[in-house]
Amino acid sequence: VAAASGNTNVDVLTSSFDVSSFMAEPVTPLSTLVKDKDDMKVKMEMLIMKIQADFCRALENEEDPSKKFIVDRWTRAEGGGGVTCVIQNGKTFEKAGVNVSVVHGILPVDAVRQMKARGKELIGKELPFFAAGISSVIHPSNPHVPTVHFNYRYFEVTQENGEKMWWFGGGTDLTPYYLVEEDVRHFHSTLKNACDQHDAGYYPKFKKWCDEYFLVSHRNECRGVGGIFFDDFEMHSQEDCFKFVKSCAESVIPSYVPLVKKHRNDPYTSAERDWQLLRRGRYVEFNLVYDRGTKFGLYTPGARIESILMSLPVYAKWEYMHSPSDGTPEAKLTEILKNPKEWI
Amino acid sequence: VAAASGNTNVDVLTSSFDVSSFMAEPVTPLSTLVKDKDDMKVKMEMLIMKIQADFCRALENEEDPSKKFIVDRWTRAEGGGGVTCVIQNGKTFEKAGVNVSVVHGILPVDAVRQMKARGKELIGKELPFFAAGISSVIHPSNPHVPTVHFNYRYFEVTQENGEKMWWFGGGTDLTPYYLVEEDVRHFHSTLKNACDQHDAGYYPKFKKWCDEYFLVSHRNECRGVGGIFFDDFEMHSQEDCFKFVKSCAESVIPSYVPLVKKHRNDPYTSAERDWQLLRRGRYVEFNLVYDRGTKFGLYTPGARIESILMSLPVYAKWEYMHSPSDGTPEAKLTEILKNPKEWI
Repeated sequence: VAAASGNTNVDVLTSSFDVSSFMAEPVTPLSTLVKDKDDMKVKMEMLIMKIQADFCRALENEEDPSKKFIVDRWTRAEGGGGVTCVIQNGKTFEKAGVNVSVVHGILPVDAVRQMKARGKELIGKELPFFAAGISSVIHPSNPHVPTVHFNYRYFEVTQENGEKMWWFGGGTDLTPYYLVEEDVRHFHSTLKNACDQHDAGYYPKFKKWCDEYFLVSHRNECRGVGGIFFDDFEMHSQEDCFKFVKSCAESVIPSYVPLVKKHRNDPYTSAERDWQLLRRGRYVEFNLVYDRGTKFGLYTPGARIESILMSLPVYAKWEYMHSPSDGTPEAKLTEILKNPKEWI
Repeated sequence: VAAASGNTNVDVLTSSFDVSSFMAEPVTPLSTLVKDKDDMKVKMEMLIMKIQADFCRALENEEDPSKKFIVDRWTRAEGGGGVTCVIQNGKTFEKAGVNVSVVHGILPVDAVRQMKARGKELIGKELPFFAAGISSVIHPSNPHVPTVHFNYRYFEVTQENGEKMWWFGGGTDLTPYYLVEEDVRHFHSTLKNACDQHDAGYYPKFKKWCDEYFLVSHRNECRGVGGIFFDDFEMHSQEDCFKFVKSCAESVIPSYVPLVKKHRNDPYTSAERDWQLLRRGRYVEFNLVYDRGTKFGLYTPGARIESILMSLPVYAKWEYMHSPSDGTPEAKLTEILKNPKEWI
């Protein structure tokens, strides 16, 4: 049956049900995963567990061999759980967090609304929901290696009238401390290629959405040099949407890891380290003041706070009235953050 | 007339109109201040300019003599301005900010509502307003010296029907890194004495409000060991309210500066410094996620961002799953933050 369907069930049945390469056992019992293999909830959980494992291994390859991800498998009293993988104070990665969560239960409608960018009206006050997502932020030690963030997620909400809604959301975005245009072009091209496999309109649309979303409004500057961002993604069949999200998630490693490899041993000064810490302060400002995912998490009962705030850097710095001098690489980056541009 | 009134107009007319001791010229032209000397807007501006100067001098006495406050006098395009005083990377004070702002203009009603804790209904959509306030956060270098924050403010809003509303708000609260109970008792006693001069019910009420307000909900712990906090303060004559606020503002120096004097030369370890930085991360979490004043500022057009975010520490730190070991001074503090107690 699976082979005949011609979709990713093939992978799921053959290679993907080998969960031995995952960072931990999936959240859902293996017997349920096998039984419900055609259910999108299962397909998404299997995808994000695999993406997590692949990304963690790829990062470990760039790290001191003695430093491995610590793996926390946790459960949520209200339903579901997750797997949180963290490296802290590594040689390459000052902080690297890759979190999978697969949760379900009853959600207040306000919380559901906070997850949808524009959203259809949801009917009902407290709604059964399911959410499976992978979320990751990598803060490298070397200021010449950019920070990356990605998040891919799938939601189901059942309304009071019994109607089930589903949608995908996600994105990948880059936050350099020093601008290397070639690197930014490589990053954006990789994401564009992933998008173009599905629809030539996706990259321009989701690139723009990314610039708009990751805006530190009170400073009128973007968090970084963007990437792609989308929400309420449901315009095609569930299967087509899933395939698109899968392509995006699979493009994280080729978009980012080459930049780590290229710069992780670059020499740097203490002034450059200082600039990196100031920019990390701005990262904290965005995540705590604006990021919908973070806010949703902080306001959700039973949320695992440490997995949400794992996105914050080890160190951040604030300096009153700091402004880089004209003509410096720091000023060049600031200029780009204030005026996002097309990279390809 | 002023002498006969038996209120603080006496000070205003005699000593307080000597603005030479202020950190900068008041925001409002001196001629207007003199002309409108009985207007609460003027009395509040004069009070907060004096409190700023007194507090800055008192802090400078505890600092390396070569390190003085830098003073920025700024204007707001939409009306009014302020005086921001900052010490950064001092011997005693890693960051000390004392900001006065006296602003007016038209405010969207949502912004006005955000400033009122419970608030009467305001009639109208865009309302003329006036706000004068002093706000300060002191982050000392030595982990044995606590952080202090205070803010005292006066608002006027004119509703669409012409009715003018006014209220005061404010508070002072302490955030130690290591708990010295005697110090906390000194701090709370000083605030209690200031309150008790006006109403024996104030301290218990405003102490409780402070514990409730400065709660980092997602961690279920208080930001510090509290103090006093109040908003929508308008239950008496304007003059009586002002006198109470004046007593509170004048109690900042005696409540806090002795603690700086006592501990600023205490020896400390790098582990204690590390703990201080982790606690500062929590301070950032509160200020960016919950603090109404900060949020109000970040969402107000024309706000001076650097004066709002001056409350953030120079350095902050986040560590995944950090938890102090049982029986340590760090665990003792954490216990108190999770279970606020009565200090006097």
